[in-house]
Amino acid sequence: MTETNNGEKILDKKITRRQMLKMTGAGAAGIAIGASGMGGILKAFGKDVFLDDDSSATNKVNFYGKHQSGIDTAVQTNIYFASLNVLVKSKAELQELFKMWTPLAVHMMNGETIGVEYKNGMLPPKDTGEAKGLDARNLSITFGVGPSLFEKKELGLSSLKPTELKDLPHFPKDQLEEVYTGGDICIQACADDPQVAFHAVRNLIRAASGKVSMKWSQAGFNSFPVENGKKQTPRNLFAFKDGTENPITSSEKDMNKVVWVQSGDSKPWMTGGSYLVVRRIQLHLETWDRTALKEQENTFGRHRDSGAPLGKKNESDAMEIERKDENGNYIVPENSHVFLAKQSKARIMRRSYSYSSGIVDSTGSYDAGLVFISFQKNPEQFTKIQNQLGRMDKLNEYITHRGSGVFACFPGIKKGSYIGEALFNTL
Amino acid sequence: MTETNNGEKILDKKITRRQMLKMTGAGAAGIAIGASGMGGILKAFGKDVFLDDDSSATNKVNFYGKHQSGIDTAVQTNIYFASLNVLVKSKAELQELFKMWTPLAVHMMNGETIGVEYKNGMLPPKDTGEAKGLDARNLSITFGVGPSLFEKKELGLSSLKPTELKDLPHFPKDQLEEVYTGGDICIQACADDPQVAFHAVRNLIRAASGKVSMKWSQAGFNSFPVENGKKQTPRNLFAFKDGTENPITSSEKDMNKVVWVQSGDSKPWMTGGSYLVVRRIQLHLETWDRTALKEQENTFGRHRDSGAPLGKKNESDAMEIERKDENGNYIVPENSHVFLAKQSKARIMRRSYSYSSGIVDSTGSYDAGLVFISFQKNPEQFTKIQNQLGRMDKLNEYITHRGSGVFACFPGIKKGSYIGEALFNTL
Repeated sequence: MTETNNGEKILDKKITRRQMLKMTGAGAAGIAIGASGMGGILKAFGKDVFLDDDSSATNKVNFYGKHQSGIDTAVQTNIYFASLNVLVKSKAELQELFKMWTPLAVHMMNGETIGVEYKNGMLPPKDTGEAKGLDARNLSITFGVGPSLFEKKELGLSSLKPTELKDLPHFPKDQLEEVYTGGDICIQACADDPQVAFHAVRNLIRAASGKVSMKWSQAGFNSFPVENGKKQTPRNLFAFKDGTENPITSSEKDMNKVVWVQSGDSKPWMTGGSYLVVRRIQLHLETWDRTALKEQENTFGRHRDSGAPLGKKNESDAMEIERKDENGNYIVPENSHVFLAKQSKARIMRRSYSYSSGIVDSTGSYDAGLVFISFQKNPEQFTKIQNQLGRMDKLNEYITHRGSGVFACFPGIKKGSYIGEALFNTL
Repeated sequence: MTETNNGEKILDKKITRRQMLKMTGAGAAGIAIGASGMGGILKAFGKDVFLDDDSSATNKVNFYGKHQSGIDTAVQTNIYFASLNVLVKSKAELQELFKMWTPLAVHMMNGETIGVEYKNGMLPPKDTGEAKGLDARNLSITFGVGPSLFEKKELGLSSLKPTELKDLPHFPKDQLEEVYTGGDICIQACADDPQVAFHAVRNLIRAASGKVSMKWSQAGFNSFPVENGKKQTPRNLFAFKDGTENPITSSEKDMNKVVWVQSGDSKPWMTGGSYLVVRRIQLHLETWDRTALKEQENTFGRHRDSGAPLGKKNESDAMEIERKDENGNYIVPENSHVFLAKQSKARIMRRSYSYSSGIVDSTGSYDAGLVFISFQKNPEQFTKIQNQLGRMDKLNEYITHRGSGVFACFPGIKKGSYIGEALFNTL
């Protein structure tokens, strides 16, 4: 253990949040031991650029890689999604913000605390601490930037705005609320624990105090049935399985086709990145619960219990919307959700969570539904599907889109680099 | 399998939500198999009074017993708390409501679906289905009645109102909002899964359509660190351990002293029951996060990382608030949360959860905090502590009570009986 001149005690190797609890005798108030000095971090990116993914960490998702985490990462049980507005007034400050966030994200994804407490406790803790004792819980953190960021003249980024990064068009039946819409930056924190996901966002925002403000946020969850030790597709609050027809994350070809921006597709800084679309969709549970099962299944185009395409047996059976019965009628109704989505020929990678946030005060209905999130190499893929759905989707009777956002998620980060470097280095 | 005259197929033995998924071929739309006929249930309490706790169910909490579940049950990871107003206009209808709910609660706590789907799918599903494939997940369901229920003249219950069942007094710094306060009936559903807890409340309310309306609801969570396979005390969003000084649930003596209403303590129908106090407490995370660690620890009277009383080493060490240092000053500050709570000499059983529900629109602050829940044989125990805290508790600077409720939770239910029978049989 070394003691620094500003009263910190630093242990030279990394200490996980779980190890730390075993080591700290709490009698001596404030001698908490973290992973590396916050002082160092705030002194803008000293030795922290050499931080490693901790391969020995339990339940660990890697921070570094060709792509950001939280996109092809196996979907976790919890999300805390935050949309921020920036308060910084120059590109340099914005760049510093992402530099400062980088080691914090590495630490938290390693399941480490983000700073060393001062030994006398006379300053605020560096880590807010509510994740202490928990491991990394497969935390992923995904950063993106919204169209409004590029419109802030003082940031000087307008020439770098990809043409496809723009607010989504108005879709039929949208009832977007400003309090759940837009934002300059998004942070998607997903983990197999609600407190770990929340802790990640809270600490990133706190470290950026005065530089960002929160515009909106939403927590969500997924409940995975387990069969023979294998996680099954979770059900949404309409009890249907969601995300069945996603691209295969293990197939580079499929992912390159649907999700990852390829060289020449967009602005160069987005190569290897992906576009995130988020929609806060209220599901009208009361109406749905009064609807016949057959009608529910015709609405989705799937069987509820198995998740199979209508008339088929297994969830994984091909959808084949062109199938007809003996009378020449489509088996999967032409106004069903999957029929229309399929017909658009567009593909996206859905990575959604359910939410239940009390009731809508004015009506007494559940404020519950879907934090719909999809990744695609171009937001147009989502728009195509949504336009197709918007016209006649039976599901529209049961849902209302209340919030919306589109964000350009940077490519992955190499060790020694920082989040968004591709964007800032382009200038 | 037997087929009934109204088109249902009933399997004569119980089918869990997990087994069901293995058994149902979904090709044949609508042939889902549940646990027992909803028809039967709605025909008011036929054979369903003979429903058993399923001792073979996985992760199962018992419904029947001397006391209701969810009070001395080990705290789960998730809660969905709902406060309802009743729309029924007579005691008989209210009694029918609780009778109807009884077998539904047994089924759900067994991890079973609550009804048999009609084979042709021409009616709404009997179970909303989002918990299908999940096991019981230690679901507990606790029912209580609020003071306002007894004030509804048409229900004729006024003579049965316990004198101690009344709205809590106004405490200093309360900023209660009507949208999170009061209610005629509460349902506390806790489970080791957010969707299972939500599903329980949703299905109970749905089955009571037209008989109750939701006044308010709140989801919450606990994240348990695990050490050597053993769950540790969870931390609240201020990173402090909560619930450390609870009565010992395995000690009948301790529980009788603090939690369970004894014969002669209250109205006879409450013997074996307990009073639930719920407070929706916003934690001002932004303010807290600017506070020195030492100040945070002096506010609670505990060390943050270990949870130990100030100046002590382990979470389980005795608090001993009278300890003084060499200068004669109290080691645990006199205005700390635990000092004041201890000084009141009152004891309660806390069973709280954290919540994070986006932001408070008007301020951009986190709408996050504590769904504080405590059980006690008399709400006065809570009031005594809260009065003691209210005057000078340092914690008051960092929190705001936004919601409140007090409910008389019935004693446990015997097989063949129903929720609240003691109340209705008293007349």
